[in-house]
Amino acid sequence: MIVGALGGGQLGRMLALAGAPLGIVMRFLDPTEGACCSQIADLIVADYDDTAALDRFAAGLDVATFEFENVPVEAVRRVASRVPTFPPADGLAVAQDRLSEKHLFERLDIPVPKFVAIETPNELADAAERLGYPGVLKTRRMGYDGKGQHVLRGGADVAAAWKAIGGVPLILEQFVDFTRELSLVAARGRDGDIVYYPLVENHHSGGILRTTLAPAPGISDALEALGRRHVGAILEELNYVGVLAVEFFEHAGRLLANEMAPRVHNSGHWTIEGAQTSQFENHLRAILGWPLGDPSPRGHAAMVNFIGDMPAKADILRISGAHFHDYGKPPRPGRKVGHATVVAEDAESLSNRLEIVTRLMS
Amino acid sequence: MIVGALGGGQLGRMLALAGAPLGIVMRFLDPTEGACCSQIADLIVADYDDTAALDRFAAGLDVATFEFENVPVEAVRRVASRVPTFPPADGLAVAQDRLSEKHLFERLDIPVPKFVAIETPNELADAAERLGYPGVLKTRRMGYDGKGQHVLRGGADVAAAWKAIGGVPLILEQFVDFTRELSLVAARGRDGDIVYYPLVENHHSGGILRTTLAPAPGISDALEALGRRHVGAILEELNYVGVLAVEFFEHAGRLLANEMAPRVHNSGHWTIEGAQTSQFENHLRAILGWPLGDPSPRGHAAMVNFIGDMPAKADILRISGAHFHDYGKPPRPGRKVGHATVVAEDAESLSNRLEIVTRLMS
Repeated sequence: MIVGALGGGQLGRMLALAGAPLGIVMRFLDPTEGACCSQIADLIVADYDDTAALDRFAAGLDVATFEFENVPVEAVRRVASRVPTFPPADGLAVAQDRLSEKHLFERLDIPVPKFVAIETPNELADAAERLGYPGVLKTRRMGYDGKGQHVLRGGADVAAAWKAIGGVPLILEQFVDFTRELSLVAARGRDGDIVYYPLVENHHSGGILRTTLAPAPGISDALEALGRRHVGAILEELNYVGVLAVEFFEHAGRLLANEMAPRVHNSGHWTIEGAQTSQFENHLRAILGWPLGDPSPRGHAAMVNFIGDMPAKADILRISGAHFHDYGKPPRPGRKVGHATVVAEDAESLSNRLEIVTRLMS
Repeated sequence: MIVGALGGGQLGRMLALAGAPLGIVMRFLDPTEGACCSQIADLIVADYDDTAALDRFAAGLDVATFEFENVPVEAVRRVASRVPTFPPADGLAVAQDRLSEKHLFERLDIPVPKFVAIETPNELADAAERLGYPGVLKTRRMGYDGKGQHVLRGGADVAAAWKAIGGVPLILEQFVDFTRELSLVAARGRDGDIVYYPLVENHHSGGILRTTLAPAPGISDALEALGRRHVGAILEELNYVGVLAVEFFEHAGRLLANEMAPRVHNSGHWTIEGAQTSQFENHLRAILGWPLGDPSPRGHAAMVNFIGDMPAKADILRISGAHFHDYGKPPRPGRKVGHATVVAEDAESLSNRLEIVTRLMS
């Protein structure tokens, strides 16, 4: 069974590692020579608009997918014209544009923060006054890990925000004074079957995910059901196949959708050791038309990202219940180079173990 | 970090999969073109006595190991003369000869079934009468998965047994009417630290391991401690580094040592999902001089080997708590081509799930 993926970063690498025991051999296409997937799988180094390379990539695949959400939709369509490709290109297109994403959420009665589409400095000035401060100005496309965002704390920030990221289609969002950030990862199979991982709690810093607690502590059954209803609606609407992650703000007992990622997601890395079936395995099962695996958590888990460079390995390896993930990437400020997942049977042990990890990284 | 392994079968493959998240890149040497490690790592195809190939294999490795217990000791010594190599070649040499192995066990006060070394048909006839029937005649070297063994049920079987496997150094063992077969997997680090997995219960058929229950049901603390004392004594005596597995017969409240394997072991596959740290990860940690990981079980686990060919994948994937392992090997009668590990929080759920797996395979 040969599965191809556009993009060859750590998400692809973890897909390949999850696929090997299932008898899956993976092939990647990525513009970067030595992308970290190449250490364990075949890598075609080519730009995403290199149609000859895309065709070479697609040749002989049983199914194709993507692990990078900013891969051009045209590349996905090209591959999809040759081999079955999931998630659907239309779903990717929606997720690549914050405005389409918001419209989708609204159409499905999923609450979102107030927003206004912005094309000109005047539109920005008007909208900022109308929505009030603080607000967050974001590029509609190509943002990730907090890139392409600018916070407006008052009218004085408007010009600077435009200068920083203006000139491309933007969206201004009302800043929500949320209780916490949650996300939900789910997988939908080719037969329409859906499995949901529990809501997890995410902590960001500098726009980058730092820590995920899974399951999110203190979630009511009603909130869990609400999250599933929202994500299920998106999956059905897009006739989606594969793993989808949706990020929410918890606010006044509701879930406001922030954004979605049409791929395996950083807030689902804990599932490798913390769930019966990992998000990576379930993504592969889904796109191959195989039965989905049990998403139930195994105890409590916390995931901590390694940003910029790796911590001293021996320190982490000494912690009982800690699982180390080195993506094999050269260090670089702000880059996700690895993560650790700490598992424990109860929340208190987890908290103690997590504290050790966090202390080691500070 | 580059780790080399002599042998490129499923044990090496699972080592490589465990090593990737630790930032370890693996390289294998195996005489078989397309050995299953080649799907996820570099493979040098060469005979074990090809010294030029061995030197090419060793070049640039941080540490070397072996995953096949019948690799010639000379090959291991050659590699060890160039890079740190574990387990020690002396330990491998002992494990390759059933007589040396038995002498080691006796020297360490580890009970063994009665045995006699055999070189000639007359010695066999004498020894068979002396030990009584039934007895098991085994080649001293190169046996695995029940190969090179012959059961003697009475004097009439002696000639046939000699004809079947005579002409090489043999050992005749008294057949023990054991309660069950158990094994213990342990890892010793370069600093002498040791971790022990629990005793597990093994079921063989046709000389091939079929099922492992982990932990073995109903083991007393005293028996567990006895197993650890025996295995610990072997590890210390050999100044061993890496994973060692020892197979025992449980008999009248004692453990009789049957044989040992100086490598990761089939009866330890359950540790991938069933223990905090897998035997594969701990073998790598041990030989690299890293801290060993927690060997504690996570609930109850059962491992079922796929022999000859793979079962229908979808049937296994549907079972909650079942984890599928396809080694990527062509089917062949008697060949281990994969396994499934079923995990559960309690023994009763495990038993139900295991029953489903077993039914699917019959």
